[in-house]
Amino acid sequence: MPVNLNLPQATPVAGIEFVTLAAGIKKNGTPDMVVARITEGASCAAVFTRNAFCAAPVTVCKDQLLESDGQIRALLINSGNANAGTGEPGIVMARAHCVAAATVLRIPPASVLPFSTGVIGQLLPDSVMLDGIAKAGELLAFERTSDLAAWQSAARGIMTTDTVPKLTSQSVQVSGQRITISGMAKGSGMIQPDMATMLSYVFTDAAIDQEHLDAALREAVEVSFNAITVDSDTSTNDACVLIATGGSEAVRSTLGPDDADWPVFMQGLLKVFTDLAQAIVRDAEGASKFISVNVAGGDNAAECKQVAYAIANSPLVKTAMFASDANVGRLLMAIGKAGVDNLDASKVTVSLGDVLAFELGGVAAGYTEERGAAIMAREEIDVIVGLGRGDASATVYTSDLSHEYVSINADYRS
Amino acid sequence: MPVNLNLPQATPVAGIEFVTLAAGIKKNGTPDMVVARITEGASCAAVFTRNAFCAAPVTVCKDQLLESDGQIRALLINSGNANAGTGEPGIVMARAHCVAAATVLRIPPASVLPFSTGVIGQLLPDSVMLDGIAKAGELLAFERTSDLAAWQSAARGIMTTDTVPKLTSQSVQVSGQRITISGMAKGSGMIQPDMATMLSYVFTDAAIDQEHLDAALREAVEVSFNAITVDSDTSTNDACVLIATGGSEAVRSTLGPDDADWPVFMQGLLKVFTDLAQAIVRDAEGASKFISVNVAGGDNAAECKQVAYAIANSPLVKTAMFASDANVGRLLMAIGKAGVDNLDASKVTVSLGDVLAFELGGVAAGYTEERGAAIMAREEIDVIVGLGRGDASATVYTSDLSHEYVSINADYRS
Repeated sequence: MPVNLNLPQATPVAGIEFVTLAAGIKKNGTPDMVVARITEGASCAAVFTRNAFCAAPVTVCKDQLLESDGQIRALLINSGNANAGTGEPGIVMARAHCVAAATVLRIPPASVLPFSTGVIGQLLPDSVMLDGIAKAGELLAFERTSDLAAWQSAARGIMTTDTVPKLTSQSVQVSGQRITISGMAKGSGMIQPDMATMLSYVFTDAAIDQEHLDAALREAVEVSFNAITVDSDTSTNDACVLIATGGSEAVRSTLGPDDADWPVFMQGLLKVFTDLAQAIVRDAEGASKFISVNVAGGDNAAECKQVAYAIANSPLVKTAMFASDANVGRLLMAIGKAGVDNLDASKVTVSLGDVLAFELGGVAAGYTEERGAAIMAREEIDVIVGLGRGDASATVYTSDLSHEYVSINADYRS
Repeated sequence: MPVNLNLPQATPVAGIEFVTLAAGIKKNGTPDMVVARITEGASCAAVFTRNAFCAAPVTVCKDQLLESDGQIRALLINSGNANAGTGEPGIVMARAHCVAAATVLRIPPASVLPFSTGVIGQLLPDSVMLDGIAKAGELLAFERTSDLAAWQSAARGIMTTDTVPKLTSQSVQVSGQRITISGMAKGSGMIQPDMATMLSYVFTDAAIDQEHLDAALREAVEVSFNAITVDSDTSTNDACVLIATGGSEAVRSTLGPDDADWPVFMQGLLKVFTDLAQAIVRDAEGASKFISVNVAGGDNAAECKQVAYAIANSPLVKTAMFASDANVGRLLMAIGKAGVDNLDASKVTVSLGDVLAFELGGVAAGYTEERGAAIMAREEIDVIVGLGRGDASATVYTSDLSHEYVSINADYRS
């Protein structure tokens, strides 16, 4: 069960259609293929994993974005198989599937972006994929592809070990236009994204130039998908795509940073990204707690994030969280091992929620195990660290380490 | 149960005496204090944790080594409480306990090194410590303190979550002298030492100048305690001490790197250090496997160790090991996230034992899940990675991530 995962109901974005089907890649017969058709003239920005073993579809996506000059007309997404660690044959296959989808949808081959998620190191079942793509083409002609049900099915179709689909929306008023921002994400393990998350697709009916869309994507990713960790492991397939269709009937002009209301748009966008990123952590493999680690008082944001990740990734901190154990010592250990140069331990403060637990190099006056334990018993725990050396801060979101995490990952392929 | 932990029977080193007692720091009444008396004229080298929250005894040890000019006459070790995160009061207490031990043993106060291991963030029980030290002084006068039983008791007295004591010896012939090297270590969680391990004490009856002893210690630590990880967490109390008593009857002269047989001594020393470091991993919290990760073909040893640690610390690799799952994809993920610049995935090779699983960017010809699974079913697993870009290599030892690990660390303080 995800931890307090309550996303607002999503609103479809004009200019986007989805079909979702069970092509047969997953052995259990659940949906495993999603095709998104995107209106002509939409702009697209994307970020991908920095894992050196990036998957074949990541390589092909980057090529397609260059070749099509960002004119993307379709997303071809499969779950159940990551097409990673598959070498040149994997790349050849991903390209062929883009051509197949382009043929069916009557769009340029370079305008299709492929995405895969699932088991690493196995070739995709080629004929299963091709049959699925042909079927998706038929469904796009006959199904209701633009309603909420189509979006919900797509959010479900990209799942692997996720227990629930992750789909959310925000609506903002910008320069007199009503703009919708809707997105979905999947992921619950192998989560410490590096420049992106597992898979996330966010759409808006605003019209935004590619250059500004790209800057907005990077700003949003930094505080959302690049601020979460489940297990410190960075996927080979991480990808995050932001598409602006300009499809809103309210759209009168292209939006950009020069508009007075741009911050309002960005606020909505950040909310969608942060909600999706937190949704991944709330649905993390085996999670029973949702933990926010806020590190302030650093020289720069990078060292704050470094300390926050050292805490968020520590197996000893995560097992203490699972046990609701107010083990402040393990937090100190993690702060101390983070590798911040010349950290003055006597200036560091550590609070659990609003309870100050550690200051001046020792246990804080008035702190008791009982007060710490009362915070740790909650499902949502704030760990707040002060480094006492500057004005920078960063927040990272994580889950606890439970028996269920071990079970899920020991049994994943068996 | 430790994984294949079979150390040779230890031989006491002349010039070293131990007493071990249950002072009452641990609530369960098991031994928790060890005092080692060291013959006059012995030389001493030590390395300590780089954790910024280093414990009070670590700070005091460094001061004592300077103040005594390395003339160390006693080690005062307690388990059950780490005296870490205890601020100035913790340091004051550690110093006072050194003075107490020096008084009882009639040695200079600066010649006592204090060590603590156990729960972080609580002050030591002062009167319990002082009573224990007084008792230790009496026992040193009346007990058999130099025999094997005394060494075995000491190895047991420094344990916390260890399931077995870790004590080993090697004997070498150097320049016609028979030299004994004997050591003990404790630790099974919060293990990714950074310049040292949890606690380890190694003694030799050779006579070696402090400068050469220090160099020998650093060389040995690099391939032993600085090449293991259980959970990526670096203790606040890591300390490793090497003492040369010159107490062997065979000792005729001071040994040093200029002696033709120095490599023979170093070989024995490296064997003791590596055996103890591996013993920690074999007895790691919840371990059911012992895993050696060898990374070769790197530009330099540092990047090889970086990749080896990325594999050894990955929760997804460790749960696959626990499940005996030949999940080569997770190994690729970990290699790829290690942050090696410009890694060419097409040159990387991955073998499980003697079975080549991955090459040329894809699954190796002839590799089958069955062949991989046969290796993974073993208790000892070799993961061998070739980076294909140089001649450097490094090996790191680790354990798997099991339900038992979560249980131990979720229940530690409850």
